[in-house]
Amino acid sequence: MTFTLHPQLDQDTIALGRFKLCHVRLMNERHYPWFILIPEGDNIQEIHQLNSNDRLQFIHESCYLAEHLQQHFKADKLNIAAIGNKVPQLHIHHVVRFETDRAWPNPVWGQFKPEPYSESALTSILNFTQPLITAYKP
Amino acid sequence: MTFTLHPQLDQDTIALGRFKLCHVRLMNERHYPWFILIPEGDNIQEIHQLNSNDRLQFIHESCYLAEHLQQHFKADKLNIAAIGNKVPQLHIHHVVRFETDRAWPNPVWGQFKPEPYSESALTSILNFTQPLITAYKP
Repeated sequence: MTFTLHPQLDQDTIALGRFKLCHVRLMNERHYPWFILIPEGDNIQEIHQLNSNDRLQFIHESCYLAEHLQQHFKADKLNIAAIGNKVPQLHIHHVVRFETDRAWPNPVWGQFKPEPYSESALTSILNFTQPLITAYKP
Repeated sequence: MTFTLHPQLDQDTIALGRFKLCHVRLMNERHYPWFILIPEGDNIQEIHQLNSNDRLQFIHESCYLAEHLQQHFKADKLNIAAIGNKVPQLHIHHVVRFETDRAWPNPVWGQFKPEPYSESALTSILNFTQPLITAYKP
């Protein structure tokens, strides 16, 4: 099976690693910790198009990520969403929200032009995600 | 276990029935077929707070609904999201999107004031959902 990342996802996000099913990427937007899971699969646009094993694998990976994001960032809320109106390749947003963030309480999509991370802020994210991804047990 | 629906959800949506875990409700907004799953549970705000059985049950119910929504409405895209910045009780949006709908390609949240269904349009939705919910096998 070949996996090709949609060019828009490639442009907007930074590769962090992968779980068993999903590639894990970071939206390069410093205002919210915003992670994206992209299940590997051919021409999959909706979660229900995953086969039954992959559906279970997906919810496992999504909850693993979500649980650790909430703990690590002391999130006020997580926003988890499969939208894809502009980028059809299935990708699931996991956005850490704070009552003090610039879009709160609105969703983040289409609100502001993303501003990229500084090198040090990105390093700090990587220092959190690398052990998290390595420790993942399917 | 007692289940109390958040007053905002009660006000904005119409009860359609329930699967095993989730209550199924319809957003009273005629511009998009917009369904909401609300897992029964005490003080649950995030999907990952469901126990492992309920997580699997949730993805099963979500995919069952999504698959039938896409077929029935010939959706261009589904938007599936757990947001909850304003209404903390866990509820997962399943919105049927069309390239011709009034918010496309933006997400629907916070875009327009909802306009309620006419009686006949609501009947047509109920004629689709009632057999769907009755036929659900956990």
